[in-house]
Amino acid sequence: MKRSCVAVVSGGLDSAVLAHHLRADGWQLRLLSFDYGQRHVVEVDHARGLAAAMDVRHDVVDLRSAGALLSGSALTDDTVEVPDGHYTDESMRTTVVANRNAIFAMVATGVAVADGARAVALGVHAGDHFIYPDCRPPFVAAAEHLARVANEGFLAETFQILAPFVSWSKADIVRRGAELDVPFAATWSCYRGGAAHCGTCGTCVERIEAFAVAGVADPTEYVAVKAR
Amino acid sequence: MKRSCVAVVSGGLDSAVLAHHLRADGWQLRLLSFDYGQRHVVEVDHARGLAAAMDVRHDVVDLRSAGALLSGSALTDDTVEVPDGHYTDESMRTTVVANRNAIFAMVATGVAVADGARAVALGVHAGDHFIYPDCRPPFVAAAEHLARVANEGFLAETFQILAPFVSWSKADIVRRGAELDVPFAATWSCYRGGAAHCGTCGTCVERIEAFAVAGVADPTEYVAVKAR
Repeated sequence: MKRSCVAVVSGGLDSAVLAHHLRADGWQLRLLSFDYGQRHVVEVDHARGLAAAMDVRHDVVDLRSAGALLSGSALTDDTVEVPDGHYTDESMRTTVVANRNAIFAMVATGVAVADGARAVALGVHAGDHFIYPDCRPPFVAAAEHLARVANEGFLAETFQILAPFVSWSKADIVRRGAELDVPFAATWSCYRGGAAHCGTCGTCVERIEAFAVAGVADPTEYVAVKAR
Repeated sequence: MKRSCVAVVSGGLDSAVLAHHLRADGWQLRLLSFDYGQRHVVEVDHARGLAAAMDVRHDVVDLRSAGALLSGSALTDDTVEVPDGHYTDESMRTTVVANRNAIFAMVATGVAVADGARAVALGVHAGDHFIYPDCRPPFVAAAEHLARVANEGFLAETFQILAPFVSWSKADIVRRGAELDVPFAATWSCYRGGAAHCGTCGTCVERIEAFAVAGVADPTEYVAVKAR
């Protein structure tokens, strides 16, 4: 069995650093992205660019049909406004797509089983713990347990769900990306999905802060940067 | 929160009995089916008929894009022959779609979270345990655990993944269906997906046997019935 890994990537900063981090760690990569009807589907183009630049296989799974049933989220539902400003309990809750990471992890696990890969990797990080339960260590452990139990006899007993950033801050990820010369300018974070990063939505604010905290130059062009 | 349940149904005998069994048990139902590129997609029409007859909401989630990556299975891959005869280790393995039930359970969980439902139900039964790891009690427990952990704060702590038939034989299901007057003739089992049940593939053979063992008249029309 190859030491290969199916990495779930969004085209964002975290997933670009994830892919480079895994490769530096010796994993043979295959990338998987999801179109679930998100407004910021432009991120999928960035994921394609990431895969092309790294010369690895990339598949985009069309989950728009499922996404339409996971409503109430600003990420997919046009009737819900994307909130401005910093992530707070109130505003982040509107950006939850029900059970998103569990669905992604299980589709990726299926691909890994069919492909004989030894792991699935997710780019979840500690900055998302407060609001998103599917970014926390117990989620990663539960997903790995389900993956093993559901596919007993069809995958390696050592099958893992890797989440190397699960206890890292976004600034830690930026620092690691800088070490690995990740082309940050080619990554996409903005939830608004315009032509350039808006600079004011929750993810843009988080991105700007992460570079500032990490002390790494931010090459991103923002439409506007909120006074802080 | 309503005492409502999202039941995953295929249009087969097990899922028709599942839906009637849950309703008899007092659950308010919503049905969910998946088109993952299976040859026997005709079953989805039978699921629609089931929902219409029971007057409950039914959604079909298009997972063909994911299904195309879960190859090596006779259920989705046109290059693999559907095996004749009884379920055996060798022939059943070719009908495995990698991680199928985990993917279905997690999409259904997302729908349940978005809908405020208290449970997801699966029609898995003991007859499938030998080959399919994702039909066994540890799978159901692991899926329920992941569903709760991944959606902490967004669903009831009492959220359940129901699998009332997990320790039943298919004959037990037929007996329960007969008690509940389930219209068996309107259900679909055949993996070949022709105009009528072929009578010779693994699921047809299993269906024929289940009625025989249960001592219930089988209203199904088969193209051919293998001498046994």
